[in-house]
Amino acid sequence: MNSAVAEHAHARAADSTAQRQASLATRLAQTRAATVALLDGLSPEDCQIQSMPDASPMKWHLGHVGWFFETFVLSEHAPGYQSAEPAFRELFNSYYVGVGPRTPRAQRGLMSRPAFDTVFRYQQRVLDQVLVLMHDRTLPDALLDTIELGINHEQQHQELILTDLKHHLSCNMLLPAYRPEPRTPAGVWPQDKVAYPFLRVDAGLRQIGSPDAGFAFDNERPLHRVWLDAYEIGARPVLNGEYLAFIRDGGYRRPEFWLAEGWDVCVRSQWQAPLYWLDTGDAPQLFTLAGVQPLDPFEPVTHLSYFEADAYARWAGASLPTEAQWEVAALALAPWRDGGFVESQRHHPHPLHTLDEKRLGGDVWEWTQSAYLPYPGFETAAGAVGEYNGKFMVNQMVLRGGSCATPRSHIRPAYRNFFPTCTRWQFSGLRLARQV
Amino acid sequence: MNSAVAEHAHARAADSTAQRQASLATRLAQTRAATVALLDGLSPEDCQIQSMPDASPMKWHLGHVGWFFETFVLSEHAPGYQSAEPAFRELFNSYYVGVGPRTPRAQRGLMSRPAFDTVFRYQQRVLDQVLVLMHDRTLPDALLDTIELGINHEQQHQELILTDLKHHLSCNMLLPAYRPEPRTPAGVWPQDKVAYPFLRVDAGLRQIGSPDAGFAFDNERPLHRVWLDAYEIGARPVLNGEYLAFIRDGGYRRPEFWLAEGWDVCVRSQWQAPLYWLDTGDAPQLFTLAGVQPLDPFEPVTHLSYFEADAYARWAGASLPTEAQWEVAALALAPWRDGGFVESQRHHPHPLHTLDEKRLGGDVWEWTQSAYLPYPGFETAAGAVGEYNGKFMVNQMVLRGGSCATPRSHIRPAYRNFFPTCTRWQFSGLRLARQV
Amino acid sequence: MNSAVAEHAHARAADSTAQRQASLATRLAQTRAATVALLDGLSPEDCQIQSMPDASPMKWHLGHVGWFFETFVLSEHAPGYQSAEPAFRELFNSYYVGVGPRTPRAQRGLMSRPAFDTVFRYQQRVLDQVLVLMHDRTLPDALLDTIELGINHEQQHQELILTDLKHHLSCNMLLPAYRPEPRTPAGVWPQDKVAYPFLRVDAGLRQIGSPDAGFAFDNERPLHRVWLDAYEIGARPVLNGEYLAFIRDGGYRRPEFWLAEGWDVCVRSQWQAPLYWLDTGDAPQLFTLAGVQPLDPFEPVTHLSYFEADAYARWAGASLPTEAQWEVAALALAPWRDGGFVESQRHHPHPLHTLDEKRLGGDVWEWTQSAYLPYPGFETAAGAVGEYNGKFMVNQMVLRGGSCATPRSHIRPAYRNFFPTCTRWQFSGLRLARQV
Amino acid sequence: MNSAVAEHAHARAADSTAQRQASLATRLAQTRAATVALLDGLSPEDCQIQSMPDASPMKWHLGHVGWFFETFVLSEHAPGYQSAEPAFRELFNSYYVGVGPRTPRAQRGLMSRPAFDTVFRYQQRVLDQVLVLMHDRTLPDALLDTIELGINHEQQHQELILTDLKHHLSCNMLLPAYRPEPRTPAGVWPQDKVAYPFLRVDAGLRQIGSPDAGFAFDNERPLHRVWLDAYEIGARPVLNGEYLAFIRDGGYRRPEFWLAEGWDVCVRSQWQAPLYWLDTGDAPQLFTLAGVQPLDPFEPVTHLSYFEADAYARWAGASLPTEAQWEVAALALAPWRDGGFVESQRHHPHPLHTLDEKRLGGDVWEWTQSAYLPYPGFETAAGAVGEYNGKFMVNQMVLRGGSCATPRSHIRPAYRNFFPTCTRWQFSGLRLARQV
Repeated sequence: MNSAVAEHAHARAADSTAQRQASLATRLAQTRAATVALLDGLSPEDCQIQSMPDASPMKWHLGHVGWFFETFVLSEHAPGYQSAEPAFRELFNSYYVGVGPRTPRAQRGLMSRPAFDTVFRYQQRVLDQVLVLMHDRTLPDALLDTIELGINHEQQHQELILTDLKHHLSCNMLLPAYRPEPRTPAGVWPQDKVAYPFLRVDAGLRQIGSPDAGFAFDNERPLHRVWLDAYEIGARPVLNGEYLAFIRDGGYRRPEFWLAEGWDVCVRSQWQAPLYWLDTGDAPQLFTLAGVQPLDPFEPVTHLSYFEADAYARWAGASLPTEAQWEVAALALAPWRDGGFVESQRHHPHPLHTLDEKRLGGDVWEWTQSAYLPYPGFETAAGAVGEYNGKFMVNQMVLRGGSCATPRSHIRPAYRNFFPTCTRWQFSGLRLARQV
Repeated sequence: MNSAVAEHAHARAADSTAQRQASLATRLAQTRAATVALLDGLSPEDCQIQSMPDASPMKWHLGHVGWFFETFVLSEHAPGYQSAEPAFRELFNSYYVGVGPRTPRAQRGLMSRPAFDTVFRYQQRVLDQVLVLMHDRTLPDALLDTIELGINHEQQHQELILTDLKHHLSCNMLLPAYRPEPRTPAGVWPQDKVAYPFLRVDAGLRQIGSPDAGFAFDNERPLHRVWLDAYEIGARPVLNGEYLAFIRDGGYRRPEFWLAEGWDVCVRSQWQAPLYWLDTGDAPQLFTLAGVQPLDPFEPVTHLSYFEADAYARWAGASLPTEAQWEVAALALAPWRDGGFVESQRHHPHPLHTLDEKRLGGDVWEWTQSAYLPYPGFETAAGAVGEYNGKFMVNQMVLRGGSCATPRSHIRPAYRNFFPTCTRWQFSGLRLARQV
Repeated sequence: MNSAVAEHAHARAADSTAQRQASLATRLAQTRAATVALLDGLSPEDCQIQSMPDASPMKWHLGHVGWFFETFVLSEHAPGYQSAEPAFRELFNSYYVGVGPRTPRAQRGLMSRPAFDTVFRYQQRVLDQVLVLMHDRTLPDALLDTIELGINHEQQHQELILTDLKHHLSCNMLLPAYRPEPRTPAGVWPQDKVAYPFLRVDAGLRQIGSPDAGFAFDNERPLHRVWLDAYEIGARPVLNGEYLAFIRDGGYRRPEFWLAEGWDVCVRSQWQAPLYWLDTGDAPQLFTLAGVQPLDPFEPVTHLSYFEADAYARWAGASLPTEAQWEVAALALAPWRDGGFVESQRHHPHPLHTLDEKRLGGDVWEWTQSAYLPYPGFETAAGAVGEYNGKFMVNQMVLRGGSCATPRSHIRPAYRNFFPTCTRWQFSGLRLARQV
Repeated sequence: MNSAVAEHAHARAADSTAQRQASLATRLAQTRAATVALLDGLSPEDCQIQSMPDASPMKWHLGHVGWFFETFVLSEHAPGYQSAEPAFRELFNSYYVGVGPRTPRAQRGLMSRPAFDTVFRYQQRVLDQVLVLMHDRTLPDALLDTIELGINHEQQHQELILTDLKHHLSCNMLLPAYRPEPRTPAGVWPQDKVAYPFLRVDAGLRQIGSPDAGFAFDNERPLHRVWLDAYEIGARPVLNGEYLAFIRDGGYRRPEFWLAEGWDVCVRSQWQAPLYWLDTGDAPQLFTLAGVQPLDPFEPVTHLSYFEADAYARWAGASLPTEAQWEVAALALAPWRDGGFVESQRHHPHPLHTLDEKRLGGDVWEWTQSAYLPYPGFETAAGAVGEYNGKFMVNQMVLRGGSCATPRSHIRPAYRNFFPTCTRWQFSGLRLARQV
């Protein structure tokens, strides 16, 4: 390369870095606005409750989002940065052992101090300072990477804010609504069996995962090859009407459909329907973020554990797809729904009634038959941020797709969500698959 | 009786009832004012936290106090009474099976709705309506009895508000103070052994319990005879300095001082000192409602379980008194401290430093060696209010005296407090006794 | 006293000691024979099972009985004694912290080694050596006291052998019998209500407990005075026919009869009848040590927890007696049944069908309303043997009387048995009482 | 095909079936002999103990082996078969819901009846009757398949008999030996680092699993293709000397090496070394089936949970292999050790001291990084026998290889063993792998 060319290339790279930095600053501001918008209609009391160890209070989510930017961006990279709230380094650390002590997970709801306003201002100030840093200087790529990770991290917490809130409201005997909404009458499930539509995918050596360029979480990498035998996969998620037939066929009383561990959990927990179903009789009702509503048989079924999804699939003579089957089929299943309650004008997040044949993403996370394990060649980042995903790669299953509560930019074919097999408080559903 | 006399007697009784009614109305208003005063400096967030199943949020305490008057006074006796908050009948029922369903005990902290202000206004309005009822009509004695019970019930919750608050603040990594206060330097425990002062009580057939006339809880009745052999009882509670000697003599490592069940609990719970002691080294510290403070060796030791109190007594070559021994000695031990943080000008409740020889009440509840069981001839009231005390008479021990957090009028010789043997979050201490 | 008289007195005391020693040697041999007789029909496999932490394997009971004599008699008092099985000092120590480490209680069933025969021979040899010691020398009174304690200790384990065996057989799906026996048809409970017979006892200052002279467990001492108001007490235990009426009146579904903690246990444990009742329908059946048998309505009800006994009493408009009420009434209730399966020719232990009006002891242990606490002036013995009873004096209730599985010499008015409130595997029943 | 050829083919198939039947009968007899040989030196008491819910008593294993042949062979296929022990259908059913009720898993140790001899004779008689059936008639292929499954099933229980026995002996304070053996002095681990030998495997599309022909468990099928990137895999398992270095480098105190869930388990369970290590100081000792022995640094490390194996791998800068990596490498790693304690003349099962560079199978099961999930196209058999493997395919990890306690014929490349991540009582170790 002669020097003129090299100079030109360098300038172009600088341009591109500057553009990226500007674009990230905009996204950071937008993300923050979206987080703040979620708080509409919530009081400090609403924001303090932790209804189970798996869930966290809104106040904690806010503090933790600020903590992430402070710990991994400002403390390490902003010259002379002094935290206004040094105690928050422990209070709002989630699970980063490398950063130090932290509030025990089950005690996140016991913090009446700091007050909500203090935490809110802390989070706002931290994000302001990140914006100032981005305005004042040209930041190295690695730091921009961390900021982009922080934005995506905040978006993950946006979804958790909604699912954790739904759970805590459901524990209240009043069953209060987050955003009340009158509901149009639901459709009626046809007497005749509704065929479940399958698409065929041919055998072949495929590639899955996220490329090195562009943003992705570490667990989506590296891009790698997998061999897939020919299979069929559902064109849409399983719907409430279909799931109700499973229930009425004794699905929750017949061990032959269940994994052994799942059956134990089902009996011990006295499951009789998905979480938030209030009744399975003639007029089934659901608890939603808009309050108690009649069940719509054309909505995708949601709030299933892995065990329920798997039992349904066996009852239906099919199985859950593997994550590779799912990802490879994703292109064929486009166009996607964009979910994105967070960015949309929708009133509250809930899967949508539909008659569409093809449908992917934006309604429910879909359980796959794949355990959450490292891809071949997976590597964690250096330092505490390397604890982000890798240390959870055991005894969990992968979910794909993205739900009605998932930010739009998190809905992509390669995205790997993961939860333990008993989890039901996420918007989790399923799609069938079968070997050809 | 001739009719003039009868008329006179009737008029006098009416006068006396009228006076009683007026007096109760005043006490009701004062009690409410004392409850409200406890909230000074607390936010709605502070009032929502439940740090363990045994404790309740302030908001719940408030709602429950209102619920008690609404359920047992207004709903049954105020003509045409309609609750403004019918759902509260379930939300704020504590344990009265006869009244119907209720929020599960461990989920009292999951109510962000109703908001604190709603609950506060509810409780105020209910008490206002009771006052209106008392102003408008002459109420029958039985109803005045229920109102008097309601006042005493509210006072019990005043104490619980303070101990529950202390526990929840102690779970916060920040160890925040309810009412911060600079503390004068503590005294120094003398090198020489401080003699523990005993008083002698002669043998005899004694009477304990509360008479039928005047207010008392049902569990204090009936008045009945007990035979007591001669005994000695401490003139004051055991002090921190004395308890520290027990700790330093290996008290928490030597099973020979402990009941078998107590030793199991001690090992399993890794107890090394009373609850809220942060350190037992050269400069021991306590968590108090005024924040972290140096330990004062002349204060009565507090936040002990029954097992610790009993182990200390055995180490000291003595025992805990029975409740009859305690009650009979109470007159000899007068004058009492009046405790009464709730009514006093003190800044926060904590046992007081003292050099007095004789001292009873107003510092700590004192564990006795008596199980909480019905007195001979004990009877419960008809209806749901009969569940007040009787159904808890098993597997608990009686405490006597009254603590720094106890309302003044609850400090009386016959008062029976009771808790399970592992309980430590109350202001519980001990006094020694021994057989002659 | 002149010297002749003194000599005479001394000789008489010596005579009496010699007689006592001879008599104890005989009792020791008899007790051992009775223990061995219990093993008839049991295999080493039968003797190894521990069906719950509260129960122990027969093999362990045998080893522990030997251990007690070895530890407290031979090791301390037999000159030059060397244990043939030094490891047994740890293996068969029950709960004596002062003696050293021990097999954890819940792991007593995990000892396949030593083999049953080894343990049996050990126990026999130890008792032989105690007999040799008693033959060879005149032993001091204190040592004879310990031997007498050892005999009574062995008898307590005879009862536990039977109740632990019953429990373990009941866990076997085959419901095998210890000693099968054809059973005569049970009586039929009369249509008309059977009156429950009460005896009246006048008020007065009474004396209860065991005198210093003669054998008694430490927890029965000292003899002391108690004041009792006038009361009535049942002339016989409550019978199956009566208890069945409680069940059929919804006794296990109506919380108003239960202590709060008892109701929680009842719901959580899904109790619907006493332990070992297989059915409460038209033809109720029991599991007994003679196998499954039809329920006889005239037998005393047994295998009740304290909570069930207390709930029954409340349903019947009465209460449980206190232990003082029970003990004072015991003389009036004589003659006693002698229970004593162990010494008798009966085929297997079970409460007896009866139509007698007056009946005490030998059928079931009777729950009292008294917590198990030290008597005034109670003192423990020095050394590890002092751990015998005292350290369990908390959170248990006293039972009085003695059951069909109780050795005859354990049936006396002052005897205090004790168990936690949930206990059901003992032969435990009840007798009613009421205040006059 | 003309008819002569067809006839010939048919005759050849018949020959081959007859040969197969004869060969299976021989194997059945050999397998039974091997099972009986395991009982040498064990008493009925030894055979009854269940030391934890995961383990089973020897007596139960025997009964269950008989039960399997009775239920799936005799009851369904032997004309007029009547069980001599009909109750055993419930007693010895392990987990086959389709067969009916069964002894709860945690209560398998509570069966003193039937006696060991009864169960032993039952198992012998059932196997005799299967042999008679095989002698008397020509059985259809499907039934021979079931008999072959039964033989393999019995072999699996042979291994469990050994590991369950080891666990129960380890719970005995005496630490008794199954087969005592004097032990030659262990080698000394060299001061210099011992290089861990890796073999390289090239990338490619490979085939794993078991073919349809010949015996294999259903979970090994179908044969299917997988893509593998190039990798390296250890030529031998990790040795005690290497693992000791991990311990001494703080392996059990440094969370950075552990999966999050593993670290929680490690802390909560107070793990400080593999199971059965009695000491990690200067002279480490192990509990083995030959009693307590000095640790040999050249033996493969064993009794590791998945979490410990994974943490070691991370500490060593490597990872665990996937099951596909392991299986593909297996040919390169041949010749294998044949393990096979059961068939061998070895005195007791324990991994062997070795200096060999290449070593596979016969020492320890090796944890892989693969979750136990169905292969693509996996299908279960019809009927209850279909519950054999499939219903456990969740929340477990695959182990490969075969241990010192594994029957010889179970050591094959495609064999998939599986256990939950906390499991330590199997002979489980590890081999390292790394991406190229």
